[in-house]
Amino acid sequence: MIGGELVPYCTIPAVFESVANGDTSLGVVPIENSIEGSVGITLDSLAHKFDLKIYEEIIIPINQNLIVNPESQMGDIKDVYSHAQAIAQCREFISKNNIQPHYAVSTARAAKDIMGDKTKAAIGNAKTAELYDLKILKANIQDMKNNETRFVVISKDDQVPTGHDKTSIIFSIYEDKPGGLYNILGIFQKENINLTKIESRPSKKGLGKYLFFVDFNGHKDDELIQKILCDIEENTYFLKVLGSYPEFK
Amino acid sequence: MIGGELVPYCTIPAVFESVANGDTSLGVVPIENSIEGSVGITLDSLAHKFDLKIYEEIIIPINQNLIVNPESQMGDIKDVYSHAQAIAQCREFISKNNIQPHYAVSTARAAKDIMGDKTKAAIGNAKTAELYDLKILKANIQDMKNNETRFVVISKDDQVPTGHDKTSIIFSIYEDKPGGLYNILGIFQKENINLTKIESRPSKKGLGKYLFFVDFNGHKDDELIQKILCDIEENTYFLKVLGSYPEFK
Repeated sequence: MIGGELVPYCTIPAVFESVANGDTSLGVVPIENSIEGSVGITLDSLAHKFDLKIYEEIIIPINQNLIVNPESQMGDIKDVYSHAQAIAQCREFISKNNIQPHYAVSTARAAKDIMGDKTKAAIGNAKTAELYDLKILKANIQDMKNNETRFVVISKDDQVPTGHDKTSIIFSIYEDKPGGLYNILGIFQKENINLTKIESRPSKKGLGKYLFFVDFNGHKDDELIQKILCDIEENTYFLKVLGSYPEFK
Repeated sequence: MIGGELVPYCTIPAVFESVANGDTSLGVVPIENSIEGSVGITLDSLAHKFDLKIYEEIIIPINQNLIVNPESQMGDIKDVYSHAQAIAQCREFISKNNIQPHYAVSTARAAKDIMGDKTKAAIGNAKTAELYDLKILKANIQDMKNNETRFVVISKDDQVPTGHDKTSIIFSIYEDKPGGLYNILGIFQKENINLTKIESRPSKKGLGKYLFFVDFNGHKDDELIQKILCDIEENTYFLKVLGSYPEFK
């Protein structure tokens, strides 16, 4: 689906910056995980910091693995390093095996940092192990099934309608108008448009003040969706259309 | 408001366990920050893991400080340690000063870990510095104003009505019924009950399946609120009342 050269970046903001600067034409960033929830820095970057479009979505089942140095055995492991989300996804495994967890900025960085020390392990996917010539000591160590992560492809460009699209928007409601969210949901309800996601994030303007991230079926160029977006704009003080893109199958 | 002996715990689940076991009579845990959003582990503990009540709420303005060893100056600092939320709240300061951030399990643990090394700093409140005989090199280093954290006091017991109460609930809606959230918000709208918070969390059963955390004005023993809770129960497949407690002034 997406071709071209792959360029790794250390952090999510660095991916956004590379697309905004034109260093890369597309970026891939995680937006939500079925267990741990939304990735705050991705939502904040889409909402406030960059004017980029969601061009595509990709949903990937997550398998976390215990990654160690080639000579290392289970009894050797005293410390485990990974991104906070990966640590959170493997809490039971870590606690049962009496290993001390440590946070790293990314799973890749964790794998790099354990190289050469047989008492240390990292948590990550198979690709991460391969990258640093490490081995997978235990596969699928995550606590829960149904663990999948939704990634979005970000771009400067809009995606054309395909007939099976989703649209992502962010809005905030007038705080002094009661029932603000209820009225917005009513606009979708009236037109029988299915919401596939609704998430709230703090607006950073004080407790109780939210931005709402909503995904729904349809493309922003569809006549009905254009009417809905107009109605929403009239009832919100901030509305940003993040993009329309084909629904992941 | 709350008397008695103070007992520190290293993690949020440990606070919940101490109250559930009866080791402590009340626990204080952070539930949301105006900038970074909800504290997932607190919401998950309230929703799934413990049967404890919210007994009180406390809202505290957050001031983050750069904490160092007594002999340390700004030019000495190469690394900074703190909880991921505190690091996130000071991103601009850290980046501007070209310091390498590292995650710790808590701000207290970070302060303890930097003792004796003048190239290392921690981020935390004034109390944290005091606890380990460290000094505050720069005060109020957080990126944004309006930074406050809401804490809840958890207890086995219910709180009596005071006349100016809030109630917190969690619910999940039938996935095959469109407009589920719209209908629930309509129940509050019809009775003119003001929602002070609405947040979504993944139900951990797959992408697009949510638990909703809602706070509203009123006490669960009020006649009108009892009617509303009955109506909600009829329209959800899971409803848990987390407690009624006086609104923080």
